Parts: sequence; C-alpha cells; structure tokens
Amino acid sequence: MIRVGVIGAAGLAGGELIRLISQHPELKLTFLGGSSHVGQRPAELHPGLRFDLGLAVEPVPDDLGSRCDVVLLATPAPVSARLVARLADTVPCLIDLSGAFRIRDPELHHRWYPDVPRPDGLADRFVYGAPELVGDQLPGAALISLPGCYATAITLGLAPLVFGLGLTLRTVVIDGKSGSSGGGLQLRTADLHALRHGAIAPYAPTGHRHSAEVSDFLDRGKPGRVGRVAMSAYGVAQVRGLLASCYVFTDDDVDTRLLQRTYVRFYAGHPFVRVRRHAETLIPVPDPQAVLGSNYCDVTAMHDPDGGRIVVLAALDNLVKGAAGQAVQALNKRFSLPEQTGLTMQPLMPA
Amino acid sequence: MIRVGVIGAAGLAGGELIRLISQHPELKLTFLGGSSHVGQRPAELHPGLRFDLGLAVEPVPDDLGSRCDVVLLATPAPVSARLVARLADTVPCLIDLSGAFRIRDPELHHRWYPDVPRPDGLADRFVYGAPELVGDQLPGAALISLPGCYATAITLGLAPLVFGLGLTLRTVVIDGKSGSSGGGLQLRTADLHALRHGAIAPYAPTGHRHSAEVSDFLDRGKPGRVGRVAMSAYGVAQVRGLLASCYVFTDDDVDTRLLQRTYVRFYAGHPFVRVRRHAETLIPVPDPQAVLGSNYCDVTAMHDPDGGRIVVLAALDNLVKGAAGQAVQALNKRFSLPEQTGLTMQPLMPA
Amino acid sequence: MIRVGVIGAAGLAGGELIRLISQHPELKLTFLGGSSHVGQRPAELHPGLRFDLGLAVEPVPDDLGSRCDVVLLATPAPVSARLVARLADTVPCLIDLSGAFRIRDPELHHRWYPDVPRPDGLADRFVYGAPELVGDQLPGAALISLPGCYATAITLGLAPLVFGLGLTLRTVVIDGKSGSSGGGLQLRTADLHALRHGAIAPYAPTGHRHSAEVSDFLDRGKPGRVGRVAMSAYGVAQVRGLLASCYVFTDDDVDTRLLQRTYVRFYAGHPFVRVRRHAETLIPVPDPQAVLGSNYCDVTAMHDPDGGRIVVLAALDNLVKGAAGQAVQALNKRFSLPEQTGLTMQPLMPA
Amino acid sequence: MIRVGVIGAAGLAGGELIRLISQHPELKLTFLGGSSHVGQRPAELHPGLRFDLGLAVEPVPDDLGSRCDVVLLATPAPVSARLVARLADTVPCLIDLSGAFRIRDPELHHRWYPDVPRPDGLADRFVYGAPELVGDQLPGAALISLPGCYATAITLGLAPLVFGLGLTLRTVVIDGKSGSSGGGLQLRTADLHALRHGAIAPYAPTGHRHSAEVSDFLDRGKPGRVGRVAMSAYGVAQVRGLLASCYVFTDDDVDTRLLQRTYVRFYAGHPFVRVRRHAETLIPVPDPQAVLGSNYCDVTAMHDPDGGRIVVLAALDNLVKGAAGQAVQALNKRFSLPEQTGLTMQPLMPA
Repeated sequence: MIRVGVIGAAGLAGGELIRLISQHPELKLTFLGGSSHVGQRPAELHPGLRFDLGLAVEPVPDDLGSRCDVVLLATPAPVSARLVARLADTVPCLIDLSGAFRIRDPELHHRWYPDVPRPDGLADRFVYGAPELVGDQLPGAALISLPGCYATAITLGLAPLVFGLGLTLRTVVIDGKSGSSGGGLQLRTADLHALRHGAIAPYAPTGHRHSAEVSDFLDRGKPGRVGRVAMSAYGVAQVRGLLASCYVFTDDDVDTRLLQRTYVRFYAGHPFVRVRRHAETLIPVPDPQAVLGSNYCDVTAMHDPDGGRIVVLAALDNLVKGAAGQAVQALNKRFSLPEQTGLTMQPLMPA
Repeated sequence: MIRVGVIGAAGLAGGELIRLISQHPELKLTFLGGSSHVGQRPAELHPGLRFDLGLAVEPVPDDLGSRCDVVLLATPAPVSARLVARLADTVPCLIDLSGAFRIRDPELHHRWYPDVPRPDGLADRFVYGAPELVGDQLPGAALISLPGCYATAITLGLAPLVFGLGLTLRTVVIDGKSGSSGGGLQLRTADLHALRHGAIAPYAPTGHRHSAEVSDFLDRGKPGRVGRVAMSAYGVAQVRGLLASCYVFTDDDVDTRLLQRTYVRFYAGHPFVRVRRHAETLIPVPDPQAVLGSNYCDVTAMHDPDGGRIVVLAALDNLVKGAAGQAVQALNKRFSLPEQTGLTMQPLMPA
Repeated sequence: MIRVGVIGAAGLAGGELIRLISQHPELKLTFLGGSSHVGQRPAELHPGLRFDLGLAVEPVPDDLGSRCDVVLLATPAPVSARLVARLADTVPCLIDLSGAFRIRDPELHHRWYPDVPRPDGLADRFVYGAPELVGDQLPGAALISLPGCYATAITLGLAPLVFGLGLTLRTVVIDGKSGSSGGGLQLRTADLHALRHGAIAPYAPTGHRHSAEVSDFLDRGKPGRVGRVAMSAYGVAQVRGLLASCYVFTDDDVDTRLLQRTYVRFYAGHPFVRVRRHAETLIPVPDPQAVLGSNYCDVTAMHDPDGGRIVVLAALDNLVKGAAGQAVQALNKRFSLPEQTGLTMQPLMPA
Repeated sequence: MIRVGVIGAAGLAGGELIRLISQHPELKLTFLGGSSHVGQRPAELHPGLRFDLGLAVEPVPDDLGSRCDVVLLATPAPVSARLVARLADTVPCLIDLSGAFRIRDPELHHRWYPDVPRPDGLADRFVYGAPELVGDQLPGAALISLPGCYATAITLGLAPLVFGLGLTLRTVVIDGKSGSSGGGLQLRTADLHALRHGAIAPYAPTGHRHSAEVSDFLDRGKPGRVGRVAMSAYGVAQVRGLLASCYVFTDDDVDTRLLQRTYVRFYAGHPFVRVRRHAETLIPVPDPQAVLGSNYCDVTAMHDPDGGRIVVLAALDNLVKGAAGQAVQALNKRFSLPEQTGLTMQPLMPA
C-alpha cells in the first residue's frame, strides 16, 4: 500500500481527496494535515463521510516524509508555496493542487500570482500534472503541479488542435461556466445560497489566471502556437460541474469531420477523455451533468462556418477531473499503477 | 382604456402578457385567442393568476379588429406569419412576439426561417420594436415585430459601440446563457426537471437565429458596421434570466472609462436600461438575478487589454424585457403613453 | 403622503420593504436606519434596486418621530425590543417585523425568547398584525407586531377551522418547508450555496418558536381550542417560498366539501387569501411557486379519511406576505387606506 | 460471474442498474430488455454512460432463463405483474423494483393497486427485499420484491421502534420530500424544469401508496403494532434525494438517549444504515445531500417533549438505496456475496 498524506483536509478538495483515497485499493491514508480544524476527524469535517480512519487533522510535522510516500497539498497557493519549500527535500513525492507552481515562466507567474512568491528554481522541478498531455514525465516524479480546473478542460479541449493538427491558434476566446464548489467554503455574502441560487454571475469577466496557465503550457518549447487567449468566467447555479467553451480563430482550414476524427485519434488510449459526436444521444455535446462525480472530461469540436471559427467544448466535474480525481490519476501514473485504479466510478446522472 | 387582445394565451409569454396587462392602468384585456385550450380561463391556464377577467380562450374571429385596438401575437413564428397575413388589414395594431418578421432581408430570413414563408412586402411594413433604438418609429405604427430575447440584450449591449462611438466591429463572439422558460411549455425529455436541473447545456453551440437578427438590424442602412457575429447559446438551471456576453474585436482604441461614459450618455433618458459600473455594489456587473421580474436590461462594457477586446455584458428577464414587458413598453410608445406605464415593478431579488 | 422610516435597511426584509414602499402610491420613504452600513444608499445595499431615493443609512436619532409617521423595524428581536422601548412614545406608529412582541403571554415569551427581555406591559399594547384575523384593531394602532412567516401561513390555514367551524384541534402536526431567504444574509457555512443547493435540511426538527406563537394567538380569549402543536421545519433549495403543511387531528366530523365551503366563506372579502380547490388547474393545491413575489397566501383544506385527519396547506412568499408585504398591508389598514394599495403585483410564475 | 438481465433498461432506474452493475466485480450484464427503445445501446439511452457493453435493448424472449441467473425488473407495476407471471418458472431469480408485489395482503393490494391484477398465490412467494429487516430470507430466494423508495426510508426509520423497543405506534404522521427523479422520464407539463424549479409541490397530500406498504410490512405476523399511518408527499427542487419525516405518537415513555442507543444497537452490523447523532457535525441530522450517490440510509430519532411525539428522520438517494442500489444489495445477499460488494461508493457531497 502507498501511504498518502493530505494537507488541507478540511476544505472541499481535501474532502474529495479523502473520499477518493478511501475507495482506492492501493492507497492508505496515513496523515491529515491543516492549520485549522486540528483534532477533527473526517466525519466531523465532511458530513457525507461517516467512516473512522483513525486519523484526525494534525499540524504538519517536519518528519512527514517518514509517514507518507506521497503528500497531496489541497491548500491555498501561498500556503502551498511555503509547504513545498519546507517539504520538497524530505517527502518522496508532493502533488500540489494549487496554482503556486503551475506557471513555469517566472515573470508570468509573478504577474498573475503577485501574492505567491516562490523560491528560485523550484518551479522548474515541477511536472505539470496533466496525465493525458505530459506523456511519460509522471512516473517517478518528485514534484507535480496539478492543472487548474478550467485549465484542465481548456488544455484537453485545445491540445488536439495544437499538438494533433499542428494548428496555430490566432485568437482563443474562452467562456467558462462553473459551479459554486470552485470557490471552496470561504464565507462571502455573494456565495450565500440566497444570492447564488438565481445568479448567472460574471465573476471574472476579464483577467482569469487560468488563461495565463493555458498559454504558458501550450506554448512550452515552441512559442507562438497560441496567440491571444481571452477568457471570461461565470458562476452558475450548480455546485459541481464546469464547462469550458473555446472559440478558436485560426487561419487554417478544418471541417467538423476532420476535427472529430482528430479528437478521437488523439485521445485513443486515454480512458478519461470521451469525445462526444453530434446527434448521437439525448445530450449530444459535452454537458457537465453527464460527467458528474466521475473522472471523465467530455470534449467535442466542430467547425462553425458562419462564425468563421472552431467551437470546442469541454466538460468536467471540477472537484474530480478538475482537482482530486486528476490528482489520484497523476498519483497512479507517478507510482506506475494502472491509470484507472480507484477511479472507475461512472457519472451520477441524473442528479 | 385601450382594448387589447392576446393570441397564444396558454403559453408562457401569453401568461406573462396577461399578468402585465392586468396590472396596467390604461389597458383592458378584451380577447384571448388560441387554437388549443379553447374555453379555458386564465386561472386555469396560469396557476399564479387567480382572478377572473370574464374571458376564456376563443378561436380567432375574422372581425377581431372590432374588439381590439391592438392584438399581441404570442404564437410560434409560422402561426404568426399566417395570422399577420390574415389580420393586418383589419386590426389597427399588431405586435408580433415571434421571429416571423424580425429579419427584414428576405434572403437572410429565408435562410434562417425556412419554415416560415411570408407574403411579399409584408416584412417591410414592420417596425422592429426595440423601444430604445428605433427612435420615433413606434407611435402610431400598425405592425411591430418584437426583437428576440437574446437579440434584445445583444443589440442593447452593442448599440452604444455602433451608434454611439461609431466603431466598426470586426468580430463579435456572443456567448448566451439563459433559463428554461425560453423553451416554453413544449414537452421534451431534455427539458424535464430531472435532466435540466444539473445541466449547463450547449443547446445551440452554433447557428442561433438571433445572431442573424442582430446583424440584420445593426447593419440596416449602413452595411459593414458589424462583421462576423459568431454566437453560441447555453441553457442553465434557471427558469427566467438571460445573460448575453459579447466579446468584441475592433481595430479602434477604447478604454473602459470611455466605454462607461459612452454607455451612460447613450442610455440617458431610457429608464429601462441601467448601466452598471464596476465595484459599485455587491453585484458589480450585470447578472440576471438583479433584474428578475422587471423590465430592466442591465448593461456594462469594459476594455480587456490582455484579451485585446471589449467585453460587453447585458442581462434581462427573458419573459419581461425579453418578451412581454418589452411588448407592453412598445405598446406604450405606440399609443403615446409614458413608456413606464404599468411597468414600474422593481426586480424581485433575491429569488 | 405618509412618511415612512425603515430600520434594518441592509437586510433582506429591509430591502424588500424599500422595494415595496418605492412602488406604493401613498408612501414616501423618509428615513433609513441601521447600526451597520451607515452612509450606504439602497442601490449599494440591494443590487436589484438602482434608483436614488436621496437617502442613506443613518444611526437612529432620538427625534425620529418628527421625520416619520410610521417606522418599520426589520431588525433582530433583541434590537427591536430595545428600539421599541426607546421610540414607542415619540413615533406615532411602530411596526415590528421581529419576534420580540409576538407572544403576548410573558412566561411563554420568556421560554421561547430567553434572549429578548422586554419591559413590563409593553407587549400588551401591541396589536398582532394579522390583517385578515384581527378585525378592526389595526386602524390607528400605535404598536403592531407582525406575525412570523410560518405563523402567518399556519394561522391563516387553521383560522377557518377554529374561528369558522369552531373545532377543537386536539393535535396539530406542522411540517414547514421554506427557502434560504428566511435566514437573512448572515454568514454561516451551512448556508453557502455549495451546501444548501442539494439540501433538504431539517433545521428545526423540534422546537420552532412559531409553534408557540400560533398557540398563543389562536388560544387568546378562549383557551383550549388548540391542544398540542408539534412543529418541524425544513430548508429546501429555494430562496423565497414557504409551505406550511398542517395535519389536524380533531374529534369532530368534517368532510372536504364542508371544509372548502367554510374556507371560501371565511376568506370572502379578503383579497390576499386565495382558497384553492382541487383538480382545478395544473397546480391544484397551494405551492409557493404560484404566489412568488405577490402578497397572496394560497390555502386549502381536505379531509383524509385514511389518515383520520384534516390536511391543511398554506403557501406564501416569506419575504412578501411573510414579512414586508404583510407589513405594508397592515400599514394600509393602520392608515385606513384600501388594503391592496401598492400590493397589486401578481405572482411571478414561472420563476 | 453472475449473469444479470435488466428489463426496463431505458428508464432512470434501469440506467442506474446498468451503472451499478458495470461497477460490480461479480456481476456481468448479459441482457437488456424493453418494449420500447429496441436496438438502442446504453450509451444512447443514458448520456452519462459511454462504455460499450456489447448489448442493446431487446424484446424479452421466452428463454431468458438460459441467459441470466437473475433478472431485475425496472418496469411499471402492471408490466412487472405480467413479466413475473411469464418468467417466474424459468428464470432462477427475479427481483422486481415495482409496486406489483410489495403488499402481500390481497385486499389491501387491490385497494391501492386496482390497475395491477396479479395471479393468485404469486405474491405469497415473494420475499420483501429489505436487506436489513428480513433476516435470512434473501439467500436463495427466487422472487424478491424491492420496497418502494419512501417505504425503504420509513421502515428503516420505524423498525427500531417496532422491532427494537417493541413500541405500539398509535399514530404515525409521515411527511415525505423527494426529488424529481422519482417520477421517471414521463413527459408531464408539471415536471418540466420551468414548472418544477420553483416548486414545493404537494403531489400527494393524501393517499400515497407507500403508506399502505409500510403498514402491511410492519404489521406482518403481529397485527396492531402500527395504528394509523397518515402520509403526505411533496416534490422539491432536487433530482435525487428523499427525506422521510415520521412523527410518531405512542403511549410509551421514551427519551432521546434511549432512542439513540436503540438505533445504534439495532443497526450494528448493517453497514448501509448510518445513525446520526445530534450536534456532531456541520449537518447533524439526516439530509439527503449527505448520502447522494451512495447506498446509505441515514436515520435518527429524537423525543420531542413539547410535541408529545418521537421525531424520526430517514434520508436516502431514491435511485440508489431507494431503488437500484438496494436491488444490488438484495442481489448480493441472494447470492451470498458480501453485502457491500460493488456498493462501496461514498456520498458525493457537496453536489
């Protein structure tokens, strides 16, 4: 059994990690860390989880490496930056779910995360933990930075265009829609049920950090493949679920048939990306309700001749494929387990 | 009192018309028409309305002009096309809420509404009933075609750029989000609560008719002001409410301050368009929950230097400002009543 | 014009009062009070309201009586108790929306509101502001205590049995279901959208204060008419809306026909109570969605021979008929205005 | 591997069965039956499920017993009655999810299911498939009738009182609240999202069939333990989730401590029933959101001295513990597999 620690156990991503690890046949939870909620057990923090793991939240000790083979950080970016600096040399593997180490380029990082200083050189040691896109970099990796929830959907949506068809994307307009769990359990008036139930809330009409993350990753090694990335993000009256709509303007000629064929081929052998083809079912295009609770990302792409663009849609559950599920998937690859181990749950639909 | 008839009284827009007319001090409902539900009274059709108007649904008679000063058509486009052809010469004023006469250009109409043939020349006689944008064309008009719900939000959002600043809009990407009432009461499996509650549903990823309507209207008289209009539409888990996000690419230089000043000036004297300025309140940008049940359209515009675009947001209640409320507003102007008569209800928020 | 002050202007009930007063032809808002949010205007506090009344929140001055003919207290019960003690002798009319003065019996009050001490004798001077049930006590009243939202629905539901049929109610089991707006804007983790969206939450399985309020009122003057009142309350995933289900066990013989006839007769002349009869419409029994945004309370009663009981259902919008709307209705009667003045809005359905 | 057939594969319960069976290590789906949707594959019927099982819907053949060790009927009660009569002698095990064989008493059955005639004697051969309550009757059983979703929650809630404490329940008032998935995919206007989103809908204020089922089961062998059962049922704006509130009036003396102790003891060794104790966590009492997607039923009981009653709350996911999950649990026991096989998924919360 692989011994796993979770820091940030009281938050939503932390709870989801506990849930998934408890269902995983090869993982054993051996540490729960946090600076608040010390002494509380999972059942007290997460009302859905009623089992007793014999663990309660503890402050993070210096010798954590002796108790865990891998530690997952479900902490805010500034906390992650400090924890990584402190633990990187003694814990065999750290998987960070925050944005602290996602953007490799230091200047770009500083611009979008001015509140998250990080030690020189540390970011270069991180693998960007997008299991479908980073090939064989994950096995044995010591430091893994998980993509953001939106960045996961967007890069999975755009990768077949960039890496499969080799297109140059002149302008990408991204319109993201997501549920309230993305904001965690922080107490903000606008996140009260009374003010969120009826909302279609433009919470980031400009300036969403994940747009920089996407540019940084897709352009790595070969700058210029992706031009403008212009992103806006909206909160809708769901709890889980995220839909990324990517409107791609390119000078290349593509039709829907070519797109569909490319996507199917690109994701062959990747069980967690499902390419949806039109008019096939009751719900012909990606819709987050068809992936709820699962580690799937549903994608499709179509040519829009009237609009002069390619429409790419990618849907996922932001707490699973967008966070805890993708963390377990990356962990599986890191430890050379079959990618689907512990992640075979099918979507809960309708719900 | 102005005598008003409503055809299509059993549908959602019909019910909303009955509701608003019953609260209007200068209007008297004198006819309810429809081909189904004949004999039923408003209280039987619309559970919220319990009053007795002494009216029940009747088939449309040929002498309707003797009973009504104005007739509102809340009917599907093919039905509206037939009714207008039949009634145009005998009813003093017809206001059509459908898409049958929105697009003036015959070829464009035929392309987007192939199932709605219309008699030659009839479309030219219609005023496009956007009260804020058509100036003094409404008083005394005999035929009025109401803009679509999305088209209302989009044209109110873009008009200050086109008509106020005189910009040429190279490309406009529109991402629309709206509630389930837009689909009416038709029985479709995907519209059952069980399948819509958890959805962020890309119901028209390409090819939404309202994009053609917007192009047709904004370009009238001076083609070339608006280039590509590329629209996608999504259903979210609300009943009412519509948010149009317009991402505008233009070669002109504008900053947010200029945009805000322009919008405020453009809509001065137009009580139903509220320009929201950033960071002003709990909900700083247009969100449909802040207009629910009212005839307001909230708009804002901001420059996005990273994205190289202008972000325009417009929010409205699709059954009020997007349908029945705007119909009453146009009717008020048609009969030279103060524009706000019967439409003073403030938004129901939170709800 | 009647000059009206509102204290507690930043809360949900306060916002609803501002909304309704601004639509009322005979009222003029002349004072907004509160201990927090001082200096803020309505448009800053309530995103739906964008008009400028020329007022901002002020601390409550001692000479408030010179600026207002009536002051509405939308404050927590302990604050209301202090404000009433301070203002009762100088403000011509105080209408308190809190629970501070609802229960007349001092011992019963102390048991259910131990945190709300009140000066001796003050409670006896209050009229219980249930406009349909207190006859002619409202005109000219100096102190009015508004019923609680649940108490309004329950007493309107039970009154025809007690006062109309003269039944003795041996046991009344009440199951209440209501939306999140009842909890106001307080920041509690369980009220975040992420934790309330999926809930059917038994927030008061026993011990709801409104059960005592109902007993106290229905038994006034003639104790023994109502035996046990056993209440449980649940939060459902709505914002507005409240349904009170009352299961009445009595030794008297009644059938559904008698019940319906009694209810119709009892509420004749009371425009805000609508008696629904079975199988009449799409939604045959009271459902809060059919009263949303209006001041209606829909009620029905039926005999259940299998269950050996009477089932009474009462639905209302907790912010309108359950709070601000009923306050305006009571104010209308207090100042001898027609009861419906400013309250003619019809339900917003669907929404 | 146990070979499993599902009839009624296109419905919601059918889809949930396919989902759970596909995740079960000891079951192999070998037949999908139905009279409609013939030829369609699971991925076409259920948008969440994208795998190919090599199966499509077929009409039910006479030799089904040669292809399946067990067949699950997710069909309407009248269809189930016919299928059981046809297949009972050739299929080794039939598990019926409908109400056709739940009520053993013929007269009671006829009264509540007049539209479901059934052959003489067949009902007596059925085991009532409540795994926690029927002891060792399930292993080897040939005919199993699954309890209804409400009946499951109610009997699990009341059993410790009746069978554990031996109380006589004079009157039980049941108030049930449940989501829209209970109604399946039938097209009814009132089940459209637009009309259900805002509803707290009293769909069965009296006369719910499950009340008869509960009486029939709890009284078996020893009539008189349960007196009146008076049930009302409400639809709330969820898709999954069911909360049964049982208000129990008894002449016996019990306090909350005794109740809690009894419930914990009664359900020791039953992993799918979780007894919640007060004030323990963020969500101290049963709430369907804390069991979503899992096979758990959360229960609690407390004494209400003011109300003179016991309050029992039971929450479950109506498609899992209330239907497909309980079917798999019963199947596990029937084939002497560990009860939790294939059912270890933890609740998806928040969602």
